[in-house]
Amino acid sequence: MDLNADLGEGFGVWQLGDDEALLDLITSANVACGFHAGDPLTMRRICAAAAQRQVAVGAQVGYRDLAGFGRRHIAYDFAELRDEVLYQLGALNAFCRAYRTRVRYLKPHGALYHAAAVDEVQAAAVVAAIEDFDHELPVLCPPGSVLAQLAHGAGLRVVAEGFADRNYLPNGRLVPRSSPDALVTDPRQVARQAVRMATEQRVTAVDGSVVSCPVESICLHGDSPGAVAAAELVRAALIDADVPLAAF
Amino acid sequence: MDLNADLGEGFGVWQLGDDEALLDLITSANVACGFHAGDPLTMRRICAAAAQRQVAVGAQVGYRDLAGFGRRHIAYDFAELRDEVLYQLGALNAFCRAYRTRVRYLKPHGALYHAAAVDEVQAAAVVAAIEDFDHELPVLCPPGSVLAQLAHGAGLRVVAEGFADRNYLPNGRLVPRSSPDALVTDPRQVARQAVRMATEQRVTAVDGSVVSCPVESICLHGDSPGAVAAAELVRAALIDADVPLAAF
Amino acid sequence: MDLNADLGEGFGVWQLGDDEALLDLITSANVACGFHAGDPLTMRRICAAAAQRQVAVGAQVGYRDLAGFGRRHIAYDFAELRDEVLYQLGALNAFCRAYRTRVRYLKPHGALYHAAAVDEVQAAAVVAAIEDFDHELPVLCPPGSVLAQLAHGAGLRVVAEGFADRNYLPNGRLVPRSSPDALVTDPRQVARQAVRMATEQRVTAVDGSVVSCPVESICLHGDSPGAVAAAELVRAALIDADVPLAAF
Amino acid sequence: MDLNADLGEGFGVWQLGDDEALLDLITSANVACGFHAGDPLTMRRICAAAAQRQVAVGAQVGYRDLAGFGRRHIAYDFAELRDEVLYQLGALNAFCRAYRTRVRYLKPHGALYHAAAVDEVQAAAVVAAIEDFDHELPVLCPPGSVLAQLAHGAGLRVVAEGFADRNYLPNGRLVPRSSPDALVTDPRQVARQAVRMATEQRVTAVDGSVVSCPVESICLHGDSPGAVAAAELVRAALIDADVPLAAF
Repeated sequence: MDLNADLGEGFGVWQLGDDEALLDLITSANVACGFHAGDPLTMRRICAAAAQRQVAVGAQVGYRDLAGFGRRHIAYDFAELRDEVLYQLGALNAFCRAYRTRVRYLKPHGALYHAAAVDEVQAAAVVAAIEDFDHELPVLCPPGSVLAQLAHGAGLRVVAEGFADRNYLPNGRLVPRSSPDALVTDPRQVARQAVRMATEQRVTAVDGSVVSCPVESICLHGDSPGAVAAAELVRAALIDADVPLAAF
Repeated sequence: MDLNADLGEGFGVWQLGDDEALLDLITSANVACGFHAGDPLTMRRICAAAAQRQVAVGAQVGYRDLAGFGRRHIAYDFAELRDEVLYQLGALNAFCRAYRTRVRYLKPHGALYHAAAVDEVQAAAVVAAIEDFDHELPVLCPPGSVLAQLAHGAGLRVVAEGFADRNYLPNGRLVPRSSPDALVTDPRQVARQAVRMATEQRVTAVDGSVVSCPVESICLHGDSPGAVAAAELVRAALIDADVPLAAF
Repeated sequence: MDLNADLGEGFGVWQLGDDEALLDLITSANVACGFHAGDPLTMRRICAAAAQRQVAVGAQVGYRDLAGFGRRHIAYDFAELRDEVLYQLGALNAFCRAYRTRVRYLKPHGALYHAAAVDEVQAAAVVAAIEDFDHELPVLCPPGSVLAQLAHGAGLRVVAEGFADRNYLPNGRLVPRSSPDALVTDPRQVARQAVRMATEQRVTAVDGSVVSCPVESICLHGDSPGAVAAAELVRAALIDADVPLAAF
Repeated sequence: MDLNADLGEGFGVWQLGDDEALLDLITSANVACGFHAGDPLTMRRICAAAAQRQVAVGAQVGYRDLAGFGRRHIAYDFAELRDEVLYQLGALNAFCRAYRTRVRYLKPHGALYHAAAVDEVQAAAVVAAIEDFDHELPVLCPPGSVLAQLAHGAGLRVVAEGFADRNYLPNGRLVPRSSPDALVTDPRQVARQAVRMATEQRVTAVDGSVVSCPVESICLHGDSPGAVAAAELVRAALIDADVPLAAF
């Protein structure tokens, strides 16, 4: 099982999350590429630290929206979005080159993550950017999403990710953030869900039913109080359960 | 002799210069990388058109200053500037990859061009970015500049460039822009200066003396009225003089 | 009748449209405020020129999206949009103060213009910004739009605008841009439509029916080839028809 | 004596400093205006909170440099800088208007603070912006600086500020940040220096000499660990010494 987390989401003097602590827990780092967050100094620092720890670096690409942290939907057309994604991929890859490695995967951020899961134009733009950059580059996204389908159709490798700290609906989708039971808040419950995902490829949905959850990566969050402690619990529980942790 | 020009210096809806016309005249395109000018769609368009015409693509890297077009000096520290240059190199290279090619050289833009010619910190930052990206990447800059010296010292290939439409001082430097005789305005004179640079590696300075001008590339301007016509004259005069035109 | 046009839509070195020519034709200048276009130097230049010609200055507020020229819909929430609009209003007003005048009205730009015409959240945000800034400030928008309704409900003055160079549907709305007959392309036809709007408050719709068009301002475009000539024709035709031209 | 501090220096999701705590300690809030830091939502929040506490709001104007937090010198020309300062003044004033107040003073930030203290072009640009905006608007700056001189010469009110947590040279200037003894680190010493500034208009310089320090405002810092506690000590010590605290 792979453990991924968003890193490098500060900008200039502003910091967000505890990058150093997370780097010791994860196997894949989703590095912000400068459009919704992230600046060149930070990108280098994360790439250097990830290379040292043999953590895989992925491009966490987002909308051009520092003021909104890439969380506001923007109605990009296909070519604009494709090229903004390609630009970010290349920019991050330069920092990987500096440490004798390369970008290993792409994961969309924020509003782009959500749009690419349901919108054919935005999903196709992400796929086209990957095809232009490197046909071997995997895309990390929700199983069953439009992005997963289009990427698969284009012959790209799709890596499905799950969330140990989010509740699932009986149909296998996430409970929307707007719902009061969107989050799994008990850290032990988070750890149990991670182990079940890893060992059984299943989760218990909010209605108690058991649903399939065939994921290769679990996303850990680092930007809320207690997030790092929760991530540590997840990692420890997976190791306890003899789940091998490695980048996909 | 190589002919280079700045291309892709618009941003979004805003255009600058006649990229299409210049692409038919030059052998090397200095493509703006999004910090002082240039946007992803334009970067792709230029990279595609350059690949088709076998024009070499270079990274025209600049300060993060769209409002000032990269023409205002910014007191970057070493690491910040190195990483902003590296970021731009990588971003442009992604568009080259899309057309099965790569960035062939780097040329600083505007205030960075001038700063790197005289300022050790800024010149060293440019050199460090190139070393991180690709030790084989040439840097295009004025002969004798601090950037040329540091790049040479680091084992990088330095390509000296001259200006057919700028007057030279007896010491081989350019007459400053602030001086009334900075520019060569007569297009035939511009063409003659280009031919002399190419065939004799010399120019006549403003005081009538003849100075050495050992350049491998001549910079053409495309952003003023009549610029394309002047560039056509230069190209025609070089061909007339049997100067082979090719990227360095 | 008022004649309005978008001005100051360049950014830094980049220019768009012929501001000087339009300033001699219009009675109200929609000045870009720096978010989708416009920079402080340009804002001053337009405010100075408008003050000299007694042209009213309005705040042409837009999304924070230089790369997309404010033409891409952004899913702002209410408070974010209200405050970005208020920020732009204040910024432009500072330049008006420098010329002993003030912002006289607000007109949304691009995707915000369209969103505020149909989306209650975005329209309410624009209304709230005006209420915070100056309850006496009129809003220039399409008649019957959600923005017109909410502004009217809040006790603001609503100034309806029409387009002499756009065709209308039988229901009084504009033919969408995506339709082949969106534009009135014959300059004489444009001038006739302007005169009919001004003298009869009616236009002939695309199906030949006559529809009511109760507007106080006609929008002229300046960013396409021939735009200034068309604007001159409109102005001349209105003067010929003894329509008094003045800011509302 | 006035107590001022920098507030609202976050951007979007990113926070910096403890605005709420400082607002209870100071009499004047230097509010970031969006160019080096600060966003419209934050500007409103600070203006609302300041109005409620009767804290004066000042425009903390900076360079257009979010990535560098306005701390890198930029070689603006006069007109560009004047208009960027004027733009920021107007933008902040709109939020003050929403709470029935107005911008009460201007204080330059970061690299502009330092440049305007010694550079005639940049100081003159700040003065010209104030004159365009409101000739009655005071400028908060170091005593004896070029900005203080030019502002005084233009008939503007100059409010001199001192630093309780910075050491002074025998000539009355601050010990440069690059020096190991730039900062007063003992909180009790900081409080003593504040009281001496307020009651004697003097400080003890690093060499033990006593120098004149005729300031009307003391700057408190809020962005370092322990900053708020130190600010509380200063405020308490001034109250203990019967120094009346009020905005200038």
